[in-house]
Parts: sequence; structure tokens; C-alpha cells
Amino acid sequence: MSGTAEIGFGMVGYGFMGRAHAVALGRLAELGQAPVVRVGLAGRDRAGREAAAARLGFDRTYADWRALLADPSLTLLDNVGPNDVHAEPAIAAAAAGINLLCEKPLGRDPAESLEMARSAARAGVVHMCGFNYRFLPAIRLARELLEAGELGEVRHFRAAYLQDWALDPTLVSWRFQRARAGSGALGDLGSHLVDLGRYLLGAEVSAVSGRLSTFLARRGEIEVDVDDAFAATIEFEGGALGTLEASRLCPGRANSLRFEVVGERGSLAFDLERLSELELYLPGAEPALTGPRRVLTPATGQPFAELWWPNGHLIGWEHSFIHQMIHLLQAVRGGGAIRPHGADFEDGYRAAVICGAIAASAAAGARLEPVYEAI
Amino acid sequence: MSGTAEIGFGMVGYGFMGRAHAVALGRLAELGQAPVVRVGLAGRDRAGREAAAARLGFDRTYADWRALLADPSLTLLDNVGPNDVHAEPAIAAAAAGINLLCEKPLGRDPAESLEMARSAARAGVVHMCGFNYRFLPAIRLARELLEAGELGEVRHFRAAYLQDWALDPTLVSWRFQRARAGSGALGDLGSHLVDLGRYLLGAEVSAVSGRLSTFLARRGEIEVDVDDAFAATIEFEGGALGTLEASRLCPGRANSLRFEVVGERGSLAFDLERLSELELYLPGAEPALTGPRRVLTPATGQPFAELWWPNGHLIGWEHSFIHQMIHLLQAVRGGGAIRPHGADFEDGYRAAVICGAIAASAAAGARLEPVYEAI
Amino acid sequence: MSGTAEIGFGMVGYGFMGRAHAVALGRLAELGQAPVVRVGLAGRDRAGREAAAARLGFDRTYADWRALLADPSLTLLDNVGPNDVHAEPAIAAAAAGINLLCEKPLGRDPAESLEMARSAARAGVVHMCGFNYRFLPAIRLARELLEAGELGEVRHFRAAYLQDWALDPTLVSWRFQRARAGSGALGDLGSHLVDLGRYLLGAEVSAVSGRLSTFLARRGEIEVDVDDAFAATIEFEGGALGTLEASRLCPGRANSLRFEVVGERGSLAFDLERLSELELYLPGAEPALTGPRRVLTPATGQPFAELWWPNGHLIGWEHSFIHQMIHLLQAVRGGGAIRPHGADFEDGYRAAVICGAIAASAAAGARLEPVYEAI
Amino acid sequence: MSGTAEIGFGMVGYGFMGRAHAVALGRLAELGQAPVVRVGLAGRDRAGREAAAARLGFDRTYADWRALLADPSLTLLDNVGPNDVHAEPAIAAAAAGINLLCEKPLGRDPAESLEMARSAARAGVVHMCGFNYRFLPAIRLARELLEAGELGEVRHFRAAYLQDWALDPTLVSWRFQRARAGSGALGDLGSHLVDLGRYLLGAEVSAVSGRLSTFLARRGEIEVDVDDAFAATIEFEGGALGTLEASRLCPGRANSLRFEVVGERGSLAFDLERLSELELYLPGAEPALTGPRRVLTPATGQPFAELWWPNGHLIGWEHSFIHQMIHLLQAVRGGGAIRPHGADFEDGYRAAVICGAIAASAAAGARLEPVYEAI
Repeated sequence: MSGTAEIGFGMVGYGFMGRAHAVALGRLAELGQAPVVRVGLAGRDRAGREAAAARLGFDRTYADWRALLADPSLTLLDNVGPNDVHAEPAIAAAAAGINLLCEKPLGRDPAESLEMARSAARAGVVHMCGFNYRFLPAIRLARELLEAGELGEVRHFRAAYLQDWALDPTLVSWRFQRARAGSGALGDLGSHLVDLGRYLLGAEVSAVSGRLSTFLARRGEIEVDVDDAFAATIEFEGGALGTLEASRLCPGRANSLRFEVVGERGSLAFDLERLSELELYLPGAEPALTGPRRVLTPATGQPFAELWWPNGHLIGWEHSFIHQMIHLLQAVRGGGAIRPHGADFEDGYRAAVICGAIAASAAAGARLEPVYEAI
Repeated sequence: MSGTAEIGFGMVGYGFMGRAHAVALGRLAELGQAPVVRVGLAGRDRAGREAAAARLGFDRTYADWRALLADPSLTLLDNVGPNDVHAEPAIAAAAAGINLLCEKPLGRDPAESLEMARSAARAGVVHMCGFNYRFLPAIRLARELLEAGELGEVRHFRAAYLQDWALDPTLVSWRFQRARAGSGALGDLGSHLVDLGRYLLGAEVSAVSGRLSTFLARRGEIEVDVDDAFAATIEFEGGALGTLEASRLCPGRANSLRFEVVGERGSLAFDLERLSELELYLPGAEPALTGPRRVLTPATGQPFAELWWPNGHLIGWEHSFIHQMIHLLQAVRGGGAIRPHGADFEDGYRAAVICGAIAASAAAGARLEPVYEAI
Repeated sequence: MSGTAEIGFGMVGYGFMGRAHAVALGRLAELGQAPVVRVGLAGRDRAGREAAAARLGFDRTYADWRALLADPSLTLLDNVGPNDVHAEPAIAAAAAGINLLCEKPLGRDPAESLEMARSAARAGVVHMCGFNYRFLPAIRLARELLEAGELGEVRHFRAAYLQDWALDPTLVSWRFQRARAGSGALGDLGSHLVDLGRYLLGAEVSAVSGRLSTFLARRGEIEVDVDDAFAATIEFEGGALGTLEASRLCPGRANSLRFEVVGERGSLAFDLERLSELELYLPGAEPALTGPRRVLTPATGQPFAELWWPNGHLIGWEHSFIHQMIHLLQAVRGGGAIRPHGADFEDGYRAAVICGAIAASAAAGARLEPVYEAI
Repeated sequence: MSGTAEIGFGMVGYGFMGRAHAVALGRLAELGQAPVVRVGLAGRDRAGREAAAARLGFDRTYADWRALLADPSLTLLDNVGPNDVHAEPAIAAAAAGINLLCEKPLGRDPAESLEMARSAARAGVVHMCGFNYRFLPAIRLARELLEAGELGEVRHFRAAYLQDWALDPTLVSWRFQRARAGSGALGDLGSHLVDLGRYLLGAEVSAVSGRLSTFLARRGEIEVDVDDAFAATIEFEGGALGTLEASRLCPGRANSLRFEVVGERGSLAFDLERLSELELYLPGAEPALTGPRRVLTPATGQPFAELWWPNGHLIGWEHSFIHQMIHLLQAVRGGGAIRPHGADFEDGYRAAVICGAIAASAAAGARLEPVYEAI
């Protein structure tokens, strides 16, 4: 479904993520990218969707995403709605030959994710799952270094995603209900870790052992039936060993996604609270003068640097969405593939399988090997 | 010259800074701000200005800024050209009743800056000098804390602005010629430090003692007649004492503007290479548990936070220009004043006086008191 | 076996750890502590033990630790030998009514450790296991804060101990042989993590799930039959959840023991490569001004500060042994108990049980609950 | 006065510094160094000197340092008394052929320091001034790198020494009285900066311009007539330019001596609050992968590493005194020279000249060139 014709862009949902995606659209011209036509925005709440549309540059809004899909000018659907509104619009859009960007986690569980991935594959549309952190310059740089073998064979991957926003026990959100969210910190935050592990190591996850915890069983009127946090061990094909953790109840950590990758020869570390930096250790000619370096990104010669400012003029979190959007639009226009640097629906499915295996492992008290279905 | 009518926005120059300003224009709608009409862009080089105009959203371009000024729809002129093209267009625009934003340093020297400030004041137009770092959330937060007296009376201000881009001896630029730039690191980088000192402390500079150095006397064809670096002591009314330094020849420092403000009770520190962070020390009830804190900005309850993402989702360098532009447009529309949070032409003039005094002190080998003319 | 009589101090082993312990003895007088009588030092290699004795201040040396034990002036045996020489001398010494300090890990496995702990308990001697990191000021401060409930109920404990010394594949050591070491990174480094978790949280470990890995199967002539690294999930009574990891194959990490403890209200973090610092997050009156603080230790009002220099004059790794030794000698003299701030043989045994459960979990592919025998 | 005979070590003063020096003596044996004979300790207050002597290992004490000098077994006098007791005992000891270690600042002013330096030179004794920070591994490593030209020609030296202990306005000490201390932060802290600049750059100071400030004019009963803080610009032969600052009134900085040295090709930075670390930037083969590295000291292949523990097992502030003492004793025994790694009395004198020039510059409002007398 790729081609050089104009892209008709529609959006399901309009919250925090919708705004991030729309900001990316607004930067295209300035970056020398062909613009898209903003077809419309679908959302259930009228006041909400209309206010969002006005800000985000959409002329038309729809109460029902089906009406958006019926617009013949729509060629790319961006699904930024809650998790329980991921599958149905995506599957319908794929069936209609519409290209897809869907926020992570892809579906609420492996089965739903599999159905989405199969629908998209079957339809032959371009499909992307919004694992935007792949598009941070420091993380792309890390991937390039690992792919080039600079660190040698990878032995350790440890990652944690820690936030604090759910500490308030009166906070109520669809994110605390399994029926709507699928899971808690596991799918919301853990899926990023799992995806980054796969992306950075270029290897599949071979085994996990996990434990989930819900610290606040009630929030206002609702019974919380998802995890507040999880911890897991993880193994990759090729033998890398590590740990994963996520929590939304960590005082002092607003948005700390950190990881370390340790290879035979070098290591690297990242923290989303300092997203412009990659800590990099490579062996040097003089061991007595080596140590982890703080590499500032994006800088001359690094990924994405040609898009931005002189060295040391930092970009932010939202820029990952700009890079992701350019990548997607180029794929839709036939100028590139989603993989390997973007995550597609199969990547979204694999993340779901791994998160599912962590949850199943926690329930079973046993180490499990994820089972990936063919798409 | 403020009012609620539509703003006709024109730009002189279109380089790095022009792009930063135009990006700010492009974010207005999404931030719920009234848009501006992009009247036109003036620049000498045809190919350059036309390419820039296409990217930055200007339909019309002009070889001569006078033609831009002649457009009756122009109500706000943004001057982002080289330093030697600051004064003439600004003075002419002021005379024509056009509001002004001019990049720093305001003029090439105190006299030129004074003339610009007087022209703008006489004309009664809104005038702003582009000391954008005032609009970084961490720096605004620092100012608010200092203004509220949280740190007590200020005793020390130390600041340095270190870059590395001029290490390449083959690099040629108008920035190395006094006739075009006025000065080197002193006016380019030092003016930011001087402005931040005045802004943060809310006090005027009472004395300076400086030393300039030119390490690379030739670059390609040109004789360098500006400073590569300077060092100075600085004193403020009220008694704060400190040091200033800037250099464009610091390996390993891409864009490190750092400062510390030390008061009777607390202290704070900032580095532009970690612009989302303010290091803050305030006394606590338990001295044994105190230490400098890393405050992430912008976060709930802090300046500019309501514009952006949830806590911990970092913004970048360019966002300072968005905040600055909103501030300016509100002033032009009559919804606020440039001062105290924005720098106006008088602030630009005062920075020029202080930088001039540093240079004069260096030449004289004596501590000097800046002399500020009435505007 | 405690009392006010002179302490006759003997040492089994004399390597790296022996030196650290002897340095502690050498500081007693200067710290106003009663000295000990250095009875003798036992070690198999004559040249080695005699050179060590000369440096460490022992007049007599013994080829066989039994001869040292036979010296009637011996009242405190410090066992710093390899792991396979921990149990026998300790058990014999206990039987002879001699007080004990034994390096960690206590025994090579839970069974050996249990026998040691029971011997010491039965004999009624003072017994300590050398988990020296409990005696770093930052860690003692962390424990005091947690014990006082400043962080609220603990929800997360994540810890890793990363070193790089075993990257050299030609390196041969008893540490790579199960018969001598018991295990690899698990017992050597992981035991510290497990002990710190128990100490900091004041809670027992209720479940673990682990995975071990040996990356270098051969080193020179020897077949490596211990782990190079492990990863585990860990749960504590009371519900805290976390991860543990250790590796001796991490380029760029010389000696990085890090942990984070996350409570309902606050969090703290530590890294042995910056052992003077405790990162501490506590809620403040103004949320917009909070952030993790860097607390320098030891400082006025903090543990151990009265022993040392003015604030900001850092102490080092070896000082943990000085604190530990003072603590031990006070207990031997009847002036205090080993617990809760020191680790005794039961603590050593419990660490062994937990490490054993991690290894067993790895083998079984199942989450396991450690089973603690009564001492 | 050097030779292989036993060293008879005497001390004038016994405070904080006396203890640091005595700790160094206590480590000699363990480090394979010949011990010294502790002849005696002189101090005016009987209870104080006797308590100190007991802890620091001196059998004899003296109310008058002249009595200590009269002891024929004295061959090395360590003067750790207040600044006003530096000159007289040192000059008398030199006249008696006794080798000398004197705490910094050498004298209270250039003239006194010159007399001390000349006395020592004339007498031909070994003489050392206690600029102990030269003996921190990170600083020695920095010096070695600079000496080897790894950073290229040095262009910038910026240094600050910030403490907080004098914030308490009720604190009274000889340090606040010119008659006893000579100066305030300038001589106490600034002298370290000046000495480090000379040591690191291997160049003499050619010009300074300074400003002093006394923020608290009264403390209890006393009129403060020394500076609380100073700021200065500094220039070195060879063209390096920089700033110096010191203050004892900086909330949140317990003991932060920081400096940066910037060369043509590289840069390095240090902070005494993280004394085990040297931040080092050297150009790499791949510019896109470079950045400042955190080099942990002491580590294999670095200065002083052979004395200590495996990599990553940090040493502390007091270890600088151990290194300094070994260096001194080797010189006294004829096994090495004080210079260039140690500071001798001429170095102490030169620091005094530079600090004096800063004070004179402040008074005169003019840049001054230090004038060094021949010793």
C-alpha cells in the first residue's frame, strides 16, 4: 500500500500520544519532508476531540472511528487510543488497505496482538508499532555500535522503566483495568524494555522468569486488576542474560527508562531522564586512561544529527516521534522499510508474547520460553 | 505598537537562528496561541533565502530588508542576521513603528546598542533582545527561587560558556572579524552570561576586570581580530562577586553554558548540556540528610510545565525559543510586558556595556565600572 | 566469650582481605580504641605468609592454622583465607571458645554455612561474617533511614554487583573452581547483595528465581565450573520485589555494587564506585522543587562521622573494615552486639541459603522459597 | 641533611592536619616503608597535646616547640600549627639543620614565606610545603598527562575551592584574623588552587587580577579582617588564561575543589568531592563516539596504584598525606627529590607571591604581575 501519492492521515484518539504524533506532523515541512493531508480525528468525547482537532490541525472529527475509516482519502491510520481500542480499528483499517501506525502495546495480550499482526501482514499494508524510543539518537547510536560488533558478543542486558505518576492512590484511569489496558506496568512500560532488548541485541528472547505485584489494590471506585510493577530475568538467543523491571510507583523517578548492554569488550548505558547522553565504554590503547564516556547526541556523524542543531544543542523526548514519523512516511511512500530500525506489528506481537510469558511465568512460578507464532 | 490585530511577521536573516525562531512560530497553534502571518524573509543570497523560506513557511522573500520593511502588513520584525546587520534594520523598523525582536548581541558595541535601544524606546514599539536562555524552564525556575529569596542574599555568581566548534583552524566565518561581529567569544557567548547574571540576581553589574585572548591569529585567508576566549571577575550591586569565562576552543565541551548562584542559605547550578536539570541546594530540617538535588524540569508546578508533556518527558534547546516567542507575541498583542522575564533592547544594551567594559578593562589592565547611559 | 581482657588476634590467610583487616587493626589507637595483641598469622606458603606478617605487624607465622589455634593467647580468629578454608578453622576455633570473624561467603554452600553457624552458636563465641559494606557510612545511613520509616514501606530492591577483573581469559584462580569457591559471582558478589537487601530492608527473603551463566568455560588449564554471572528476581517478606545481578565480566565496571531501595514515599540509591554518596529522594513541602539529592557521607550528624575528618574530606573503601573491626572488638569486649548492624554467622548462613536457592532455581527453572534451618 | 639514618620525627601542632600527617606515619610499615621514630609533639595546650600525643603515637610532648627542636634525635620537623606558628619554628629548625615539612600556606604573606624559603635553602635541609593535593592519584595522573603533552598546549585553567563551614556566623577561629592567618579564603583555599595551577601546567603565573570580599564582618567577639571569598583572573607564562575562586560560605559545598585544564586537543576536570575520578577528554579516532570519560583512580597502570587495592576499591582524602609522607621520607633518606611532584618551600613562596598579588590587585584595582624573588 505504499506509493508516492499524497498521504491521507487520520488519527484514532487524541490524548498525550496523539499530541506527540501531531507535533511530528507539524515538523515535516521544516525538515524538508513532504507533508501529509490531515483527514480527520476520531474520538468518543465531542468536546475533547474538537478541542484536540483544533490544536492538532485536523479539520474534521468523528465520534466513531468507522466513519474516519470510511473517508476515501484516508491512507494512513494512526491509532493513539487506549489499548482496548487498538485492535478493532487497526484490523478494520488493514482490511481496507489502509497503512497503520499503532501505539504500543500493540494489543492487550498476545492473541489480540497476533490477530493484528496477521491482519496487517495479510493486507500487505505498511504497519508500524509505536516503540518510539528506537528513534532516540542515543539509542539508534547504541544499536549501530552493537550491530557493528564494537562491544563484542553481548552478555548482559539489564533494563528498568521507573515512573512515579501512579503513587497517588486516588488516581483513576483505564490503565488500572485489565479489560481496557491488558496489563499494568508490564505492558505499558515493560513492553518498551522488551522491544529495546530485541532491537539493541538483534536477538530474540529465549526465556523469562517474572513476578508481578499490585501494591495498591483499590483506587477510588475501582478494583485494580493489573500489575503496578514487575521484575523478571530475561535470556536471549546467543546467551545474553539480564533483568527487567518496571514500576509506576517509584518516588523520585519521573520517567527513568534505563538500560545497560554489556559485551565482551565494551558496555553502554542509557537513561531517558538524560536522553541526550549515551554512556559508552570501549577499550582504549591505554587501559589506565579508559573509563565510561558521556557521548552527547545527536552530534556530527551520529544518527539524526543532520536534522537538528549544532552539537550540544539538545533535542527532547518529542523528537523521537518526529524521527519515527519520518521513517514511517518514507516507508509508506516506498522509500524505505519499517524494519529493522522501526518496530512493525510483528515486533509489537513479539513484545506481547514476551510480556505474556513474564505474566505466565509469574503465575506458574516457572521459567518459560516465549512461543512465537508465525505471522 | 501593541494590539490585538493580526501580527505580520518578517524575518531578516535565515540561518541557524532563523530556523529556531521559525520552529517557534510553527508550534503556536498546537499550544493554543494565535498564529502570526508570515510576511516575508529577507536575505542577500537568493538560493539561500528561497530554500529557507520554503522550509520555514514564508511565501515571499526579499534581497533587501528595506523592501520587507516597506510591506505594510509587517508589524513585527525578527532580526536573526549577522551582528553587522542588526542595527540598521532595527533602527529603520523602529522608526516605522514596527515591533522588534533582535538576536543577541544587540549591536556590535555599546554605542551601536545604545542607538538601537534609544530608537526602539523613542518609537514606542515592543522590543526584545533574543537572550533565549532566560526562557529555559530550569533558568526561569532559578530566577523565581532567587526572586522569592529562597537562597537568601546572593554572594557568588560564577558562569562559563564553553564550546569547541572553533578548534578547527581552517574554519572561516564572519564571527572571527571585528568589523562584522564586534567581538568574539565575549559578545557571542559572554553576553549570555552577563545577561543571565543580571536576570538571575536582579541586580546590575558594578565592576568587571577582564582579560581576552586570541589563540588562533589566522584562519585561512583571514586575520582574526576578535577574542577566542575571555576571563573576567564580576561584581554586582549588592555585593555578589564572581567570575565569567567563555571560550570557543574547549575540546570536549560542545555547548556547555554553566553557572552557579550561591546565596546565604542555598545554591543552584545549571549546565546547558543538561538543560532539563537544575541542581538545587536548600537547607533542610535535617542537615545530615541534605545535599544538592537534581530537579528535573519542566515538571508539575514549575514554569512552562503546563505547555508540555508529563514529568520526565524532556524538552530541548529549541523550546526556549518557543517560550520566548509566546512571550513576545503576548507583549505585542498587549497581553504582557517584555520585562522582567524577557530581555528588551535596554537589557541588550546593558549586556553590551558590560562586555565593552570587560574588553576595556583587559586593554587597560584595570578594574572598571560599567557606565550605563539613560535610554 | 566476650570480656574486657586483652584480645589475642590471629589471622588465617593474608591476601587482599587480610591486608584490609590488618589496616583496620592499625587504626585502632588513633581512633581511641584499645589495641589488640597480634598473636600470629597462618598460611601455607612460607615466603608469602612471612612477607605479609612483616607488613601487617604479626611477629609469628604458622604453616598450619591448627598451630595458631593452639596458641593459648588467641581469643579472636579472623579467617580471611579462600572459601574452602573457612569452615574447618572456624568450627575448630568455635569449639575452642575462640571468637570469630570470617570473610564472606561464610561457607561454600548452605550446608557448610549451617554447620559453621551452629558451631559458633553452640560454643557461645562472638561470631561475625565479613559483610563489610554494612559498615560504609552511606549504607549505614540508608539503613537508619529505612528503619525509621522515612521512605515508608519498601516496594522495590534492585541491586547489581559488576566487576571486570575476570575478563582476562588467561586468568586462573581458585575462584573459578567450585570445589574451592563453592560458586562464582553468585557467592562472591551476589552474597553481598543478598546481605545488603536483608540488612537494609530488615526483612527476610521469601522467594527467588535465578539464572546462572558461565561465559568462559575454560581458563588456561582449568575447566571453569562456577558461574561468571547470575540474574535473579527476589521477593521479601512484606512484599518488596526486585532484581539481583552480578558479573565479573563487565567492561568498564571495576567495582560497581549498586542498589536502589524504593519505598512508598522515598527512594535511595548507592554505587560503590562513588561510595561517599547516597542518592536520597524524600518528599518535600514543595513537590516542584524536589529531586534526588546527593548526600555526601560521612558528615556531621551521620553514622561514623565523629571518627573522621571534616565534611567533604572523603574516606575510602578500606574504612568499612575499620568500622567493622571496631564493631567486632566492642562486641568481643562486651560493649555491644554484632547484630543488627554487623552480620553474624546466621546472617552468613542466610545469605548462603538465598544464594543456594538462586542456584537451585536456575537448575530447576522454577521460583523457589529459601528454607532457613534453625541455628 | 638527607641520609639513610633513622628519621626522628617531631610535630608542631596537633589538630586536624596533625592527625592527617600522623595517620600517614602509621601506614608506613604496611606499605613496606621504613618507619620513623616519633620524637615528640609540641603544643601550647597541655590537655590537648597530651590527648593528641596518645592517639597519634608520640611519647613525649612539649609546651614549647623550642624544646622539641632541642632534642638531638629530631631530624625532621613537621609543622602543622596555625599559620602564625609556621615561620619561626621552621626557620629555627632549618638553622639547626633539621629537615622540614610545613603546612600550607607557607607563611602569612610573601615576605614571611620568602624568609622561610631562604632559610631552608641556605641550610641545605630537605624542605616541603604541604600542598597535599598534588599527591591525589587523579591529580598526579592529570599532571603526567599534561607533562606528556597529551592535551596539547594548555589554554585554560579554571579552578574554584568552595566550602561551607564558615557559614555559621557564631564560629570563631584564628582563621578569621589577619594577624594569625595572614588572609582568609585566599591563603587557605586559594593557595591550593595556585599551587595546582603551577603544578599541572608546569608554568609560572604571569599576571593576576583579583577581588576579595568579606561577607561577615563580625563573628562573635571578633572583627573579621580577612576575606571570606575571592575571585581572580589568572594568566600563565605560555598564554593559558583562567579564573580562580574560593569561598568558605557556599551552602551545599562541603569541600569542593574543582579545576579544569583545557588544552588544544583535550581537557580534564576534577572535583575533590569525587576525588577518585578524573574526567578526561581526549580526541578519538571516531569523533562521533568521543566524550568526556570518567577515569577511576588509582587503577592498574596509574600513579600510586601499586600501593593500594584492586581497581575500583576507592581510597580517600587522607591517602594524599600518605603519598606525600612517603615522598618526603624518601627525599630525606636521599632516595628522591621533593620537586617536581612535591611542593617545596620555594613553591610555597611562589604561591604566597601569587596570593599576595591577587590581594594587591584587589586593593589597587589593577592587573598585576607577580614578582618572584630569587631564593
